[in-house]
Amino acid sequence: MDNTEMESALSENLNALTPQMLPCSKVKLREAMDYSVLPAGKLFRPNLAMATYLDSGGDPKKLSEINKFCSFLEFHHAYSLVHDDLPSMDNDDFRRGRPSTHKVYGEWMGVLTGDALLSASYQCLAKINHPQSLNILKFCTWALGPKGLILGQAYDMSGQINISINDLLTTHLLKTGRLIQCSLVGGRALSKEHMGLTELKKYMRMGQSLGLIFQLIDDLSELSESKIGEHEKEINRWVDYPEELFVILKDQLELLNRLCGPHHLEVKKVLSKYFQKMKAIILDGQQNIKNHLGQNQKDLIPVVELLERLC
Amino acid sequence: MDNTEMESALSENLNALTPQMLPCSKVKLREAMDYSVLPAGKLFRPNLAMATYLDSGGDPKKLSEINKFCSFLEFHHAYSLVHDDLPSMDNDDFRRGRPSTHKVYGEWMGVLTGDALLSASYQCLAKINHPQSLNILKFCTWALGPKGLILGQAYDMSGQINISINDLLTTHLLKTGRLIQCSLVGGRALSKEHMGLTELKKYMRMGQSLGLIFQLIDDLSELSESKIGEHEKEINRWVDYPEELFVILKDQLELLNRLCGPHHLEVKKVLSKYFQKMKAIILDGQQNIKNHLGQNQKDLIPVVELLERLC
Repeated sequence: MDNTEMESALSENLNALTPQMLPCSKVKLREAMDYSVLPAGKLFRPNLAMATYLDSGGDPKKLSEINKFCSFLEFHHAYSLVHDDLPSMDNDDFRRGRPSTHKVYGEWMGVLTGDALLSASYQCLAKINHPQSLNILKFCTWALGPKGLILGQAYDMSGQINISINDLLTTHLLKTGRLIQCSLVGGRALSKEHMGLTELKKYMRMGQSLGLIFQLIDDLSELSESKIGEHEKEINRWVDYPEELFVILKDQLELLNRLCGPHHLEVKKVLSKYFQKMKAIILDGQQNIKNHLGQNQKDLIPVVELLERLC
Repeated sequence: MDNTEMESALSENLNALTPQMLPCSKVKLREAMDYSVLPAGKLFRPNLAMATYLDSGGDPKKLSEINKFCSFLEFHHAYSLVHDDLPSMDNDDFRRGRPSTHKVYGEWMGVLTGDALLSASYQCLAKINHPQSLNILKFCTWALGPKGLILGQAYDMSGQINISINDLLTTHLLKTGRLIQCSLVGGRALSKEHMGLTELKKYMRMGQSLGLIFQLIDDLSELSESKIGEHEKEINRWVDYPEELFVILKDQLELLNRLCGPHHLEVKKVLSKYFQKMKAIILDGQQNIKNHLGQNQKDLIPVVELLERLC
């Protein structure tokens, strides 16, 4: 399934879950929801879920239920971005190269559109016709609620993220890792009926690694620009803990490589695309990264080699 | 079950769903969730759900599952209030006589606390161990999502509510009625295994009536004060459509009385408390209401008599 098909499934689900208003209506909720979800971004999480589903023997001809799960992931991701962008949160005027939702529709619509996407995401989950539906719902509400993703946002916004390297990793795990863990666990759970505890733990570890790697590489790639603002430098954690983060990134890349093993061919395809892009950015910007890290500069070749292995 | 028991069940569920942070932590999410839910208000919706459960033959000795549903309702109600109070929404500094959540914890915490309560509410639903769990979830995500409660908020905030009396009633049905419909339908669904379509329709109608009555009486009671601000007068719909709203309120009160019939003794008890209070307010403030409505003044005795019948 390519991104075009996934995007049209998303669009269909939006249609089913939200009312199209008359053009004369003052209520622009549906329009703002569409704007926040479409055109879709990389669809990394839905692609990861679909890949896990296929790798674990899910029927490629029966995609209706996993498609609902993919829409759940993307709606949920979109809600968290819309709320993160609000003036009282990160105050971001742009998202994916376009004005953010609240810039186009107003701040109160930013709040309501996020709420609507959050609700719609669980509505997608509720519609999944599968013996594991309730278990998936239990897992996802735990992973994304006040013990999970939202707690991660609170770690970030409150400044707890800056207290220690442990707080930094906790924030990444919660804010980024939990939704990736949902993608893997949900994709697997929908493929066959039973998933034992050992397997669940493996997907949890894979998701945790992936969340940390995702966030650390993202921060590192920001340093590959020749010029970055003072604010960016201040909040980039590589400047604070270059040695430690280097070790952690290497460990997590090795662990992920081991966990993927010779199976997970579809998952590897999804990751490969991402890692190839990131490898190029880091290789090209190597000298800039070293300059930004100053006397803390590290030899980035081992990281690049590890990325290479995952490509 | 009295409110004290219901409040301690709420508190237990908060404990199970959200982490208690160390006192030194900068993360105050749990604190803000507690503050937004406890001490509880009237618990009108949970009481209504419990009453419906008992009226339909639910076992009064097995309250664990209906208790989770009651927590779902109250968390969901609390989330909608926390977001409604935000500066970009209604900008209310006070709620239940105390500073509103964002006034105490900051605006970004208002956004996240609402999100956390919304997620936690569905987490409560997911934990209900009952053959009807998934159906209840489907119903509630429909009723409270972008086709339901949130659409009602968008009607209200966008000014669509002011376009016609029909828009006004739609807003009340969505914003107030839907969560009341959930209370009735969920309470009934958890009491026994099967609910036919006829019965479902009856509860939908009861909830719709109750939502309209609730909102109309609330607006009317605001006019019972001798002085109200210009803004209050401007947004009070009784000033715009006194004749029509009077007829609608009478019709809905009669319909509700008929639907309650000789059964629903527990539901009647819950309603009676509320209607007694509202009757007193309206009787006492009769002259003020007439003054505020000016030449549109109505004889309020028929409404008071209908309230009487429901007490």
